[in-house]
Amino acid sequence: MKGDDSVTAPLTEEAYREAFGIVLSSRVRLARNLRGLPFPDRASPAIRADVLHRVCQAAKTELPVQDVLAGTERLFRQRLFEAHLISRSLLEERPESAVCMDEARHRAVMVNEEDHLRIQALRPGLALQGAWQDANALDDVLEQQLDYAFSSVLGYLTCCPTNVGTGMRASALMHLPGLVQMQEIEPIIRGLNKIGLTVRGRWGEGTAAIGHLFQVSNQMTLGLSENRIVKDLEQIVDELARHEANARERFKREQRRKATDLVARAEGVLLSARLMTTQEALERLSELRLGIALGLTKKIEMRTVDRLLLDVQPAHLQTLAERAMGRDERDEVRADRLRTALGRRPSRRTKRST
Amino acid sequence: MKGDDSVTAPLTEEAYREAFGIVLSSRVRLARNLRGLPFPDRASPAIRADVLHRVCQAAKTELPVQDVLAGTERLFRQRLFEAHLISRSLLEERPESAVCMDEARHRAVMVNEEDHLRIQALRPGLALQGAWQDANALDDVLEQQLDYAFSSVLGYLTCCPTNVGTGMRASALMHLPGLVQMQEIEPIIRGLNKIGLTVRGRWGEGTAAIGHLFQVSNQMTLGLSENRIVKDLEQIVDELARHEANARERFKREQRRKATDLVARAEGVLLSARLMTTQEALERLSELRLGIALGLTKKIEMRTVDRLLLDVQPAHLQTLAERAMGRDERDEVRADRLRTALGRRPSRRTKRST
Repeated sequence: MKGDDSVTAPLTEEAYREAFGIVLSSRVRLARNLRGLPFPDRASPAIRADVLHRVCQAAKTELPVQDVLAGTERLFRQRLFEAHLISRSLLEERPESAVCMDEARHRAVMVNEEDHLRIQALRPGLALQGAWQDANALDDVLEQQLDYAFSSVLGYLTCCPTNVGTGMRASALMHLPGLVQMQEIEPIIRGLNKIGLTVRGRWGEGTAAIGHLFQVSNQMTLGLSENRIVKDLEQIVDELARHEANARERFKREQRRKATDLVARAEGVLLSARLMTTQEALERLSELRLGIALGLTKKIEMRTVDRLLLDVQPAHLQTLAERAMGRDERDEVRADRLRTALGRRPSRRTKRST
Repeated sequence: MKGDDSVTAPLTEEAYREAFGIVLSSRVRLARNLRGLPFPDRASPAIRADVLHRVCQAAKTELPVQDVLAGTERLFRQRLFEAHLISRSLLEERPESAVCMDEARHRAVMVNEEDHLRIQALRPGLALQGAWQDANALDDVLEQQLDYAFSSVLGYLTCCPTNVGTGMRASALMHLPGLVQMQEIEPIIRGLNKIGLTVRGRWGEGTAAIGHLFQVSNQMTLGLSENRIVKDLEQIVDELARHEANARERFKREQRRKATDLVARAEGVLLSARLMTTQEALERLSELRLGIALGLTKKIEMRTVDRLLLDVQPAHLQTLAERAMGRDERDEVRADRLRTALGRRPSRRTKRST
């Protein structure tokens, strides 16, 4: 399982772009519940506490980093949410909830979210089958110690009927600025919906695709094997990535000026602004990321941008600054961080003063 | 009259800002008509041609640069319009119309606009009394050779009744970003309206104040002497300029971050964009101009920005490029011109490639 680390080992910039330029990451999550116990929202505090204890115990070896979430500061939970380690549901305070993670934060179990357990595995790039293997292996370990609610007819029983069956949701996080620029994204989303896939903004349901980041996931959990769902989704995501690569090349070739303008402005604003909202930062970083992929800007590495896509978010920003900040101060610190991280300002200043 | 040239003699950057930072220019125009002849719109082609000939002859010595406008390319007229040498009315083709100018383009007479003659004098900075003297002296020269329609009761007779009397409109072109940023501009405009002044966008009636450039002018032409109108307006403009200076300082002091952000972004975009509309160029240049006035950006001279406020406009741009261009190409050439003129790109590129 520690094989995951090899994926994050140093890569050349070119290899990094090749691997993560369009598909940033793959995720599989499994919804599980303990037999004979009410779902968290129906359970008494005592039962939830019992579930919490049993799941944490079972996960201890594989997932030694364990945080009880109920009673923590919102900022703490928000940081986990921004990093996709907990769901929107756990961002709000839920009683007797917890998250158990491995050191690398690639595998996690949420406890007492909507279901007793939400197992998830994350891999960088397009690696849905790998993420499924990770989630499945973790599920096996847990199942040795926990008695899951399972029906031979329906499969795994879950709080929400849309998860019954495999209890699995597989998703890929994709950067699709080319399809957006070429105005081809909407028919594609409609087509994906028709074949049972969901396309959402980066932070799940109800969020717009800020910064051209889309999450593509399976809708169905019943009637197909996990292997089949994951394999099909991987193939579709791969095809979608090819469409995106094609759209990017056409954008660069057919609208060269507009493409150059978009990227140069993004860089200009990121290197100049003294105040910046999260949304604008994500939008400008997305444009810059496209520029890097298309070779329209040379000096900034894609992994720097990807790191910033996380670090500019409110809770990450405050954690890095080691203090709570209001919105106005965050906008200042965010702009400063972007200038420093993308950092040609200091050297320009030096040059200009000579 | 050639004393005007001293005003445009080389100034230090500091003296330039002091003189033109808030009041860019002062203008006086006089509406005049020839006795016994119908106004241009009512006159026959033969009469208009006669007026054209007589005015051009009378103006020949003072205003040797004479262009018949009817039949010229629109681009040619548009360039004169952008430089405030002809009115919006002459931008459209009017029969037997012309403009007579001195070499420095400080004094001009439009022929067969709404009135037979529209005399105008322009001076840089706040110099309404000077502009009035220039216009008045030119008017005297012309009156020696032309018989003006004048009533001892009403004064000079004009096509539009709002000009009857002095036939004079005096105006100052002001850059008021401080009052706009501090949200104080609207009550001030209402106050000025109440005391009989008009505040409009840079290119006269019906144009919004793009780039925070406002034209403040007298409404009344009847019942007051020219000297009195000009003196009163000069005093009010001077007071308004003080308000603007005060608002700018408060903006810098009370909203330092926002001010720095505004200026740095403007500079960043102007130095990065590869496509730019006229309106965006005027807006970003206005913000940069404010930044220069407040000492928030050091390397760019205000006179460079002022030159660009003219040069980025469509007809000037095409004249400089020595060819007619469609909108898309203009947006490219405009962005290129701005990067070159504000020009740190080349040196940055050099530095970055080392």
